[in-house]
Amino acid sequence: MAVQTTASSAAASTVTAVTASSASPSVDLGPAAALSCRECGHRVPLGPVFACEECFGPLEVAYDFSGYDAEELRRRIEAGPANIWRYAPLLPVPADVAGKPNLNPGWTQLVKADNLARELGVTGGLYVKDDSGNPTHSFKDRVVAQALEAARAFGFTTLSCSSTGNLAGAVGAAAARAGLRSCVFIPHDLEQGKVVMAAVYGGDLVGIEGTYDDVNRFCSELIGDPAGEGWGFVNVNLRPYYAEGSKTLAYEICEQLGWRLPDQIVVPIASGSQLTKIDKGLRELIALGLVEDRPYKIFGAQAEGCSPVSAAFKAGHDVVRPQKPDTIAKSLAIGNPADGPYVLDIARRTGGAVEDVTDAQIVDAIRLLARTEGIFAETAGGVTVGVTRKLIENGVLDPTLTTVVLNTGDGLKTLDAVAGTGPTAVIRPTLDSFREAGLA
Amino acid sequence: MAVQTTASSAAASTVTAVTASSASPSVDLGPAAALSCRECGHRVPLGPVFACEECFGPLEVAYDFSGYDAEELRRRIEAGPANIWRYAPLLPVPADVAGKPNLNPGWTQLVKADNLARELGVTGGLYVKDDSGNPTHSFKDRVVAQALEAARAFGFTTLSCSSTGNLAGAVGAAAARAGLRSCVFIPHDLEQGKVVMAAVYGGDLVGIEGTYDDVNRFCSELIGDPAGEGWGFVNVNLRPYYAEGSKTLAYEICEQLGWRLPDQIVVPIASGSQLTKIDKGLRELIALGLVEDRPYKIFGAQAEGCSPVSAAFKAGHDVVRPQKPDTIAKSLAIGNPADGPYVLDIARRTGGAVEDVTDAQIVDAIRLLARTEGIFAETAGGVTVGVTRKLIENGVLDPTLTTVVLNTGDGLKTLDAVAGTGPTAVIRPTLDSFREAGLA
Repeated sequence: MAVQTTASSAAASTVTAVTASSASPSVDLGPAAALSCRECGHRVPLGPVFACEECFGPLEVAYDFSGYDAEELRRRIEAGPANIWRYAPLLPVPADVAGKPNLNPGWTQLVKADNLARELGVTGGLYVKDDSGNPTHSFKDRVVAQALEAARAFGFTTLSCSSTGNLAGAVGAAAARAGLRSCVFIPHDLEQGKVVMAAVYGGDLVGIEGTYDDVNRFCSELIGDPAGEGWGFVNVNLRPYYAEGSKTLAYEICEQLGWRLPDQIVVPIASGSQLTKIDKGLRELIALGLVEDRPYKIFGAQAEGCSPVSAAFKAGHDVVRPQKPDTIAKSLAIGNPADGPYVLDIARRTGGAVEDVTDAQIVDAIRLLARTEGIFAETAGGVTVGVTRKLIENGVLDPTLTTVVLNTGDGLKTLDAVAGTGPTAVIRPTLDSFREAGLA
Repeated sequence: MAVQTTASSAAASTVTAVTASSASPSVDLGPAAALSCRECGHRVPLGPVFACEECFGPLEVAYDFSGYDAEELRRRIEAGPANIWRYAPLLPVPADVAGKPNLNPGWTQLVKADNLARELGVTGGLYVKDDSGNPTHSFKDRVVAQALEAARAFGFTTLSCSSTGNLAGAVGAAAARAGLRSCVFIPHDLEQGKVVMAAVYGGDLVGIEGTYDDVNRFCSELIGDPAGEGWGFVNVNLRPYYAEGSKTLAYEICEQLGWRLPDQIVVPIASGSQLTKIDKGLRELIALGLVEDRPYKIFGAQAEGCSPVSAAFKAGHDVVRPQKPDTIAKSLAIGNPADGPYVLDIARRTGGAVEDVTDAQIVDAIRLLARTEGIFAETAGGVTVGVTRKLIENGVLDPTLTTVVLNTGDGLKTLDAVAGTGPTAVIRPTLDSFREAGLA
């Protein structure tokens, strides 16, 4: 069954004709029952498609969770492995996923951040969900792991993506473990460090003479061409499955809080997909009876230099006006976020907000988190911590409530942001020199 | 009780007079009962001392494990947290350690490396214990976590060390989380990237005008001086406790294998401490009845450019002749390894061996591991994988037996080693250009 769709690429927001590979009706992706359009509700069978054939709206995974008993499900999860596959009954993956070769990401630490709480004046309990503990040190391992299972289910033999950073490493590593070919597309003029991280896993790495937008446009073309046959682009034709990986952040946070919803959660916004899926995950836990049904607020965090969703939120708009990114938070620098309108809905529905911070505030927040909790975050972590501080100062975030802040990446990947950091003192190797420096 | 010792510093192998801070007889470090000399067996109370007052031999922690029932202990461990504190009953830490602010390292993945096994011809099961998953991405978090508890028990308020890399970050981060001051000493001319990683946690970072040996000598002086009062140097006056952290690698490997000893294990050698403590941990598990008592072989891995233990092993010597290190494996570059003779004993007693590989072989092995398993190791991981390959080729390591290879650090910290890695191709953003490159 070849489904012909004209699709709005969630990654590139370009419109292009897409021929989907055929999806067998016997595809086993566990509880995933179909893809359904987030706009019009139209359902199609599971397959490598990402846009509604009726209205071009984004497709997402719909599940059949009927027959789940809350107590039995909780016991099953708790007896599962210390990674995302403990939640396999809630993800678009086959039941035996934990036995297949993959990076087994997740079950990262939820750090009780008492020192940071003191500095920020949070009295209701402050936690940092630290996703730098994933195998390639960003939350991308969660989403790529879902895309990998979808790729296997659809018979794809090459795992691909366009990327300027974290995603390239996550795809390269996951494909290596799984024994698939990988082919990652990057702008040809990326910094050498990022090129090394993308290339070290031995897959094909293709530099494209052009901007990141050119890279995305090229990938969309390739999906529609015979040359792209058998290729799974994790964030394009596998995007509905890929995106579901972010639900595991919600599951883990609640389980690590003792099967309890946080009152407030601060999430970074790039495309906005992560925030919408965290909301989806929380609502699923409520519907399944795994957590008590009570209100929670979701806050979105952006860098001022790429703050289209924050700007729309503050202006009271429903539509997000694209921006040209100019910020050190490169992993959040998507000027035209596909899920922006959904993020606005969620922030407003839950009583949250969307806020942004300057590059200087991002750097300050990276240092604050490192100094108080020993967590070295990438710039995206500086954004969430900085926005949390700003929201408290502005009286928007309630410091008497339980609050979870996401760190989605690792400071080792964005060393430049804190490059000015140096020694407190330089001394001669003598006790006199040490005393003179006033360090005793 | 001030204990006056003349001590052979395990870190620096320099001899210096040390005044230990007083240790209360009521110090609670769980099952740790005393310190005992590895040479003459002389016992002293728990305290911040590291060398025997009788013979200058190295002190190590002696335990009271009496009263442990194997089945009860196993259940207690399995019900514990997903970090090293599940083994608190076997470590020099108070019983309530998991509730104290620390980085909670450990319980890193034991990766079934089937792709690598195929390349190396291993048929008996090959595993990589991947310690890049620790909070600061090296095994050092395990050892620093023990030193931190000892520092708290002895009332130290500053956590310190000399370091050129992984240890600086681990100490800075752990002190930040624990709310202790940190002061880390480094050679003043370290690469900027390493300085950033050491400085970002906000503790004092002191550049010493001199070599790493000068830094070590200065630290030994400082311990004996009033200026160093209240300072815990994790790898000097807290070394007996610190070193015990490496036992957790042995515990985790066996538990993750289903409470089974590996037949063969390949461990990197810097000071040699890690290898000796892994052996200690395995012997403890046998003595406690947690694993079956059967033979295992321990293999040591060095870089050719710093191979004093390998050279001694091959020459049949009991004594290790110091070398001047010259290798890209900086985290293993200890030319005069304090535990070298113990490593030789263990390799010979268990039927293992010590081998070394060239820098080129280290780089090849980093790429091999990344390409086959999606694990990006630091140079020390290249050393163990490279040595494993060499030992198989030489018929020393038996490929039909279960084998565990350690990766103790993260490739992001030694990017220079694979700096030549680049794109497979650079193309224009067109399908024609893509086809011309032969990538379809």
